[in-house]
Amino acid sequence: MESSRPATVRFDHASGELVLVDQTLLPGEVRSIHLTEPDQVREAIYSLRVRGAPAIGVAAAYGVYLGACRSSAEDGPGIGRDFRAACELIVASRPTAVNLAWAVRRMAAVFAASERLPRLALLAALRKEADAILEEDVEVCRRIGENGLQLLRPGWGLLTHCNAGALATAGDGTATAPIYLGNRRGYKFRVFTDETRPLLQGARLTAWELAEAGVDVTVICDNMASIVMSKGWVQAALVGCDRVAANGDAANKIGTSGLAVIAKHHGVPLYVHAPLSSIDLACASGKDIPIEERAPEEIAEMWYSRRMTPRGVKAFNPAFDVTDHSLITAIVTEKGVVRPPYDQTIPALFR
Amino acid sequence: MESSRPATVRFDHASGELVLVDQTLLPGEVRSIHLTEPDQVREAIYSLRVRGAPAIGVAAAYGVYLGACRSSAEDGPGIGRDFRAACELIVASRPTAVNLAWAVRRMAAVFAASERLPRLALLAALRKEADAILEEDVEVCRRIGENGLQLLRPGWGLLTHCNAGALATAGDGTATAPIYLGNRRGYKFRVFTDETRPLLQGARLTAWELAEAGVDVTVICDNMASIVMSKGWVQAALVGCDRVAANGDAANKIGTSGLAVIAKHHGVPLYVHAPLSSIDLACASGKDIPIEERAPEEIAEMWYSRRMTPRGVKAFNPAFDVTDHSLITAIVTEKGVVRPPYDQTIPALFR
Repeated sequence: MESSRPATVRFDHASGELVLVDQTLLPGEVRSIHLTEPDQVREAIYSLRVRGAPAIGVAAAYGVYLGACRSSAEDGPGIGRDFRAACELIVASRPTAVNLAWAVRRMAAVFAASERLPRLALLAALRKEADAILEEDVEVCRRIGENGLQLLRPGWGLLTHCNAGALATAGDGTATAPIYLGNRRGYKFRVFTDETRPLLQGARLTAWELAEAGVDVTVICDNMASIVMSKGWVQAALVGCDRVAANGDAANKIGTSGLAVIAKHHGVPLYVHAPLSSIDLACASGKDIPIEERAPEEIAEMWYSRRMTPRGVKAFNPAFDVTDHSLITAIVTEKGVVRPPYDQTIPALFR
Repeated sequence: MESSRPATVRFDHASGELVLVDQTLLPGEVRSIHLTEPDQVREAIYSLRVRGAPAIGVAAAYGVYLGACRSSAEDGPGIGRDFRAACELIVASRPTAVNLAWAVRRMAAVFAASERLPRLALLAALRKEADAILEEDVEVCRRIGENGLQLLRPGWGLLTHCNAGALATAGDGTATAPIYLGNRRGYKFRVFTDETRPLLQGARLTAWELAEAGVDVTVICDNMASIVMSKGWVQAALVGCDRVAANGDAANKIGTSGLAVIAKHHGVPLYVHAPLSSIDLACASGKDIPIEERAPEEIAEMWYSRRMTPRGVKAFNPAFDVTDHSLITAIVTEKGVVRPPYDQTIPALFR
């Protein structure tokens, strides 16, 4: 069964609209939103209607393209003012998402190279670059799926954390790409998805997109990973990542580092799925990766019908943690699978 | 600062009422309920208004006493029919809570020994036994507190899971007893409490009762234990237990086994707090302890204002897991602290 899920992020060339699935409504409602203004794109990123570093990058690229389209100017310098305003607006929407700034920089470079072209040719060049960013993301996911599937066997139980899925990319996701590919090839995986507190991306998003594709999926609370592994139900843990340091330390959604310790204890391999664009050779180790701390209210009251912690009691809410490279069995990239010693195998990916 | 918290479970001898804090309303509302009928006590246990094995035992003892009080019969055999009906009613309210059946058996033994007494003397004997069960629980908690505090140092960071607190007993709790005692003695602990999905006993109950007592408490999601330990913020993890096997394997709230693996990885000791009544020498190991599986809806929708997993997607919801004895640093009981080899030190507790 193929998924009936609409595309996470696409551009409707006929209407000139950026079309996104509003992820804040999932899993209760599947509604696409159609955006034509840069400020709508900014709001969609800020409010997590679109999320996941690759998907944000694609949305941002089309967002700044829309900024140029909306310009009433006829010449390059005039359009440039509106384009740059859109870039600033959108880059500020979520400053920590690395692909956002990267995508906007790519668009700005094309603008600079095309500024002297007539208006229509300039807009066409920008749209072509945004299309390329989207298409490259689809291809990166496809390759990560092929490379990751080589590590898995039919009938395996798999455990995922957060959503490194199709909803986080323009393609089949990163950690989910081998699952979708295996599903199409009859591997019949049984997937356990951590609900992923506090924002429940596993329960709301990963469970939804895998179920839509006909994958056998069971939601568990984050604290149940150990029991499902102790029962022998899980043969591999598959996660995405937000940034990989040069030594293989990987920052990913909070809870990944604890999951890695538990997986190692139970003899379950942990595979990190990373586009090369997520590997930061400038970071020597995980100690150099800043960890975003978010509002305590996400723990205390978000998603709940009534407050769940006493007023005045503190909550600590780191959005990510760093998994030590010693706990990572392999890192799956679009250029292949690397294993320890990561300080040698990771730099070799870029040669 | 002493706690302004009302007693978890007490008997008002003037009015003849069993008085409980309704824990389903916490932390938003602190309301005591006054019960005079066995069926009210059954409902309170079934609906988790009172929970925690020791507290349930105390409530059940007074519940069956109320069954005898409500009898319109004048003689032992007549009262006995109503007393036994109350026993059956209350024992069935939560069949897995070991202290419930144990407390009712104690009350039934007293009834059998006192059946020929006049009505008032019979009721007085029953009330005296219920009072004894409550007072013994207070004393067990006190001793666990003294024994457990010897393992801790002033200024330490402590991590708790679920609620093995004052709200689970008639006294200072089990895992929380050393925290309360240290707090009164100026130890200035900094406590992190796992929220404990799916029912959030850590966020709702432990955080509330510790904050009421002036303890420095911070709620974290269950998946954040690893990051707080990696920061060096936690010097010991304190948990309760539902049943300890003869080899030291301990069944406790789901998530404890994963927490134990993570604690060991970070070099943090894990202390299990157990009244002797929770140690089951008839269980050779954790494999012999049955694990209750609860409704998937607790994960999918309980506490939430809207459904958080897609309809039709499975959820696996074990209420407990078993922590291997190799991961437990020590077991704290009212008779002292035991360490490995548990298959020798645990039986010695009962000699």
